[in-house]
Amino acid sequence: MNTNPSNIMALTSNTSNKKETVCIFGTGDFGRVLGCKMIQSGYSVVFGSRQAQTSSLIPKDAEVLSHAEAAQKAAIIIIAIPRQYYNFLTPLAEILHGKVLVDVSNNLKLNQYSQSNAEYLAQLIPGAKVVKAFNTVSAWALQSGPLDASRQVFVCGDDKKAKQIVMDIVRALGLTPLDQGSLLAAQEIENYPLQLFPMWKFPIFLSLGLTAFFFFYSLTRDVIYPYVYENKDFSFFIAISIPNRICPIVALILLALVYLPGVLAAIIQLYRGTKYSRFPDWLDKWMLCRKQLGLVALAFAFLHVLYTLIIPIRYYVRWRMNSGVLSQALNNRTDPFINTYGWLNDSYLALGILGFFLFVLLGITSLPSVSNSVNWREFRFVQSKLGYLTLILCTAHTLVYGGKQFLNVSSYRWYLPNAYMLSLIVPCIVLVVKFVLVFPCLDKPLTQIRQGWERNPRYSEQSNYIINKSAV
Amino acid sequence: MNTNPSNIMALTSNTSNKKETVCIFGTGDFGRVLGCKMIQSGYSVVFGSRQAQTSSLIPKDAEVLSHAEAAQKAAIIIIAIPRQYYNFLTPLAEILHGKVLVDVSNNLKLNQYSQSNAEYLAQLIPGAKVVKAFNTVSAWALQSGPLDASRQVFVCGDDKKAKQIVMDIVRALGLTPLDQGSLLAAQEIENYPLQLFPMWKFPIFLSLGLTAFFFFYSLTRDVIYPYVYENKDFSFFIAISIPNRICPIVALILLALVYLPGVLAAIIQLYRGTKYSRFPDWLDKWMLCRKQLGLVALAFAFLHVLYTLIIPIRYYVRWRMNSGVLSQALNNRTDPFINTYGWLNDSYLALGILGFFLFVLLGITSLPSVSNSVNWREFRFVQSKLGYLTLILCTAHTLVYGGKQFLNVSSYRWYLPNAYMLSLIVPCIVLVVKFVLVFPCLDKPLTQIRQGWERNPRYSEQSNYIINKSAV
Amino acid sequence: MNTNPSNIMALTSNTSNKKETVCIFGTGDFGRVLGCKMIQSGYSVVFGSRQAQTSSLIPKDAEVLSHAEAAQKAAIIIIAIPRQYYNFLTPLAEILHGKVLVDVSNNLKLNQYSQSNAEYLAQLIPGAKVVKAFNTVSAWALQSGPLDASRQVFVCGDDKKAKQIVMDIVRALGLTPLDQGSLLAAQEIENYPLQLFPMWKFPIFLSLGLTAFFFFYSLTRDVIYPYVYENKDFSFFIAISIPNRICPIVALILLALVYLPGVLAAIIQLYRGTKYSRFPDWLDKWMLCRKQLGLVALAFAFLHVLYTLIIPIRYYVRWRMNSGVLSQALNNRTDPFINTYGWLNDSYLALGILGFFLFVLLGITSLPSVSNSVNWREFRFVQSKLGYLTLILCTAHTLVYGGKQFLNVSSYRWYLPNAYMLSLIVPCIVLVVKFVLVFPCLDKPLTQIRQGWERNPRYSEQSNYIINKSAV
Repeated sequence: MNTNPSNIMALTSNTSNKKETVCIFGTGDFGRVLGCKMIQSGYSVVFGSRQAQTSSLIPKDAEVLSHAEAAQKAAIIIIAIPRQYYNFLTPLAEILHGKVLVDVSNNLKLNQYSQSNAEYLAQLIPGAKVVKAFNTVSAWALQSGPLDASRQVFVCGDDKKAKQIVMDIVRALGLTPLDQGSLLAAQEIENYPLQLFPMWKFPIFLSLGLTAFFFFYSLTRDVIYPYVYENKDFSFFIAISIPNRICPIVALILLALVYLPGVLAAIIQLYRGTKYSRFPDWLDKWMLCRKQLGLVALAFAFLHVLYTLIIPIRYYVRWRMNSGVLSQALNNRTDPFINTYGWLNDSYLALGILGFFLFVLLGITSLPSVSNSVNWREFRFVQSKLGYLTLILCTAHTLVYGGKQFLNVSSYRWYLPNAYMLSLIVPCIVLVVKFVLVFPCLDKPLTQIRQGWERNPRYSEQSNYIINKSAV
Repeated sequence: MNTNPSNIMALTSNTSNKKETVCIFGTGDFGRVLGCKMIQSGYSVVFGSRQAQTSSLIPKDAEVLSHAEAAQKAAIIIIAIPRQYYNFLTPLAEILHGKVLVDVSNNLKLNQYSQSNAEYLAQLIPGAKVVKAFNTVSAWALQSGPLDASRQVFVCGDDKKAKQIVMDIVRALGLTPLDQGSLLAAQEIENYPLQLFPMWKFPIFLSLGLTAFFFFYSLTRDVIYPYVYENKDFSFFIAISIPNRICPIVALILLALVYLPGVLAAIIQLYRGTKYSRFPDWLDKWMLCRKQLGLVALAFAFLHVLYTLIIPIRYYVRWRMNSGVLSQALNNRTDPFINTYGWLNDSYLALGILGFFLFVLLGITSLPSVSNSVNWREFRFVQSKLGYLTLILCTAHTLVYGGKQFLNVSSYRWYLPNAYMLSLIVPCIVLVVKFVLVFPCLDKPLTQIRQGWERNPRYSEQSNYIINKSAV
Repeated sequence: MNTNPSNIMALTSNTSNKKETVCIFGTGDFGRVLGCKMIQSGYSVVFGSRQAQTSSLIPKDAEVLSHAEAAQKAAIIIIAIPRQYYNFLTPLAEILHGKVLVDVSNNLKLNQYSQSNAEYLAQLIPGAKVVKAFNTVSAWALQSGPLDASRQVFVCGDDKKAKQIVMDIVRALGLTPLDQGSLLAAQEIENYPLQLFPMWKFPIFLSLGLTAFFFFYSLTRDVIYPYVYENKDFSFFIAISIPNRICPIVALILLALVYLPGVLAAIIQLYRGTKYSRFPDWLDKWMLCRKQLGLVALAFAFLHVLYTLIIPIRYYVRWRMNSGVLSQALNNRTDPFINTYGWLNDSYLALGILGFFLFVLLGITSLPSVSNSVNWREFRFVQSKLGYLTLILCTAHTLVYGGKQFLNVSSYRWYLPNAYMLSLIVPCIVLVVKFVLVFPCLDKPLTQIRQGWERNPRYSEQSNYIINKSAV
């Protein structure tokens, strides 16, 4: 857990039999730490620097030479300098000819240059074999050991042998190389560490949009309406009551949106009679972010649970309860217990508890380490069977919560229905369509289509090799 | 997180230096996706198909030939066709002679055939070197990148070199090969992706059985009894009150059952005087599913917490509280505060909170990624020391909850004790026996036995090399 | 998930083409299980033992010979015997000359011997190539398959080729070798499995210290003071009320201590004008355990949430509420609803809920499998931006909770302020200093320094290559 690499490094100076010599251009943080790590793994390291003098910053077992001298000593040269200084390499083109140049650079912005750094380097030194690697690993992660940070190193390059050599170095450092193909993949690899949750953008913006809409909707119904008609100040509802109205609504809608694309895909497949025609782009993208949609929904459900459990501690709730009791006491009256209310209230709470429990289970199963340890059939069982059960329970929870109010005209204010009624639209559509699709007359052809059967084989010629993921 | 492999793939068409050529028989989903992935990793791919024509479904850099032609072009042939079509390979036996055949097939049911697909293939083409691989990876997982799905590929085969070649391909695709031995292991490997939580079956059926028993037990005591004798309708207890009685009981019993086999094993070892004799089969199996038992217990404990926290929101509870206050108010009376009740009530709640907290901690530690990052001593400390502390706290929680009722005859209905009393039997036995085993006169010989000492060395001759896992 | 290795092993006996022969000295648990596993992976295994006779404990495909005979049969010898018996190897020195000796031993205590076992072995048999490996893997983990236990095997040794051979065996067994350098690293590797949460020690002792302090502080104010002055027995507060006062305080202070070192580091860097001078040792250590500090803080916050949610179920709370209502009823009086109280109460609860929600999010992100699947920029965003937001919300939660009491003299007992006031000191300092550091006049030079700029370049000559980790 805490192998302190710097300690070990200090000890390994007198290793008798070294691996190849590797040259590192640049003595910045990344170059130095990579150098240390390589010395520790048994490589000889030569630094190429403008000032060819050993500084106290550089590991003591490494030589520091001029760029030209250093490059001559090794067959592999790691270019640990920013892209804007690459042109100083052109005079060295002759020395670098035939050598493996490893581009470890990153940019500051997504798609900063039209050409990736690695391709630019390959163009500058056409005789060298350029390999892109190590850009996803930070100096800090290298130094503190691989346990706390990602161990995956994306590698790409046009020369097969050069790539193999670099992948061996990656493995020797205790990291996992992932071959990403030719140097044309460098752009993608360079963009990778600059991304900020790209798969989460759509779910998060969608949920923020829904939150904003339902906030103003509830504000109108629950704060402005009573203020206008009854002159009551319920502005403090903004802190808890309104969030606790928004959270379950957004959670339920998002959860339904996780299962809607699968249902749409099934309809498209049934209509087209084949699975080999591509889905529209928006459906493909929607399907790819279902996991993120589900997790955002879980976050809202979690907030709803916290907001709900806190209810009896609230001053407002206590005050209302007490004044209810007091009015009974002062009027010498005792409200009788109504069994139907007991049933309705308890079952809506029980449905909510079970729904949330299954939702948490789904969330735990989507943790990378858990989903990696189940097989395909188990994963499908959890995400599909348990997922629909969760949706059914949560929808039932909302329906029973509403109880008889759906038909009650007094619950409409300014012709606006209660917000939770709106939240039921999408889940009910999904459940009804899914229910229809389960009927044998539709389920049977669908299963056949998903096993590769085609109603009209010619259709597939226009399609692509992408598999429709709706199988989940 | 979201390296879109299809993009990269499209770019890698002009890779100059290719790895070996691989032939794929079958142009179904899996064959095509595997082909794409291999081209992306630098291999040349030739498809063998009945209709030797390039379809738009097939990656454009791959050739499509007849089976015979394709097979001649490569030393490795991946058989991506279902088992029922294997017999078409027999005419090709001569061409396939000496080649590496990779069987990637899966069946639809567990143990569908008496002979594994890979062994059947090896028998059909005796001159070929058959290797089983890739069957645990789905086309979908291959296509969407390795981060979201399991990266482990089980490999087995009789020919060492052929296996090595296949394992190199597996690694080149960014997956992790796991050598499982000779082709005889193929049956097991083919069954693997068809299993549905095999280790969870016993814990789940056990907990369902306990749930059913305690449901009817509580129904009798809490709903039927008052209906018969007091004509009161408490049927709505089915929604929350009875589940909240079942959940803690099942959780406590299951938690005790996690530690019972360890205690039994210690007694067996002490009695036999050796650790080298095999435990009875049922004990071995029980020990192997302790983690799952514990996690199911945690799920029930989590439900118990949710059911308990929701209590003050329930209509029934509010009504009962209010009517209590009202009866005091109407009778002009104020119940005094009883200090003992304050103590009992607060300590039983505090014990429950601490027990649940430790239980959650145990659960987090059993997540694969967490348990992989602790060493053996730390794992034992958490699962053994903290585990017993959890059991003690939860048992104490139940004991204090009972308070003085154990001796109270009025709490027996139809001679049935309160259900929580039954739940205390197993945990108390486990804790008492464990307490006895901690005494030096028993702990010392037990430690010696577990370090390999034998009271009667001859005994071990009948035993097996299996290590008794009770050490945990 | 449950590939039963013993089954597969039994099947693999008739593998036709074996890998190299490996010799194992010692037929204890670990030697035997390792032998089984190696046979399963295709190696020939010869056991060297004092009694050269096959016991039923030993896998049937392995030969058992005398130590000398066994050693002659293989180039690799795994020494699976305890260190205290190593001297019996000296007579075999000639046979062992030039062979690869793999030391798999562990000690019982940290730093039990001044010299590591592997170095001691190398000194005993100077002609052999000693490699340290496998000591972090238990027999139990080897036997039950790699999925449930750590797969990392630390390897070190002076001979490069010998190390490579051992690392190949490690890989063949489905484990991941991590090269740790020369044999000097053996001491560290041997200590690794004996450590008990070394990174957690400081956070846990600190939190226990804070807990003890605030326990006695609250005991004095909330139990002893009312007992002395009002003769009221609030001793039952020890079970829930006082823990629920301690938990949020300790959680808030620990959370602030997670961010304090980063702020201190920024001040030091600004003052020194460089990032290349080393931080004081205490600051370095503090920074390395920030994750653990944060997780301990989360544990206390979780307990605080549980203690808070349980409040309305408590007998004391119910009694106090009821007597409040009763006194109103008996006096024919109804307390009016005070809007400010509603606002204050609801906003402090809402802030707490949001703070806890973000805190849980931070905790989930620090799970190894989650943090491994985000890139550096995403990790920084979560841990830094969301982390500070959590600290702000939790501090605001405590401030609003206090409300107007800060100025209220009656809340001071024996001149002791309410405990939560003390808890606000550290978080407020951190937030104020951080707020100052965000101003452009300080933020700009700090960013430059962190990108490598130095105000006074000579200074760096005295420094070290360690990167200051304050960047996070």
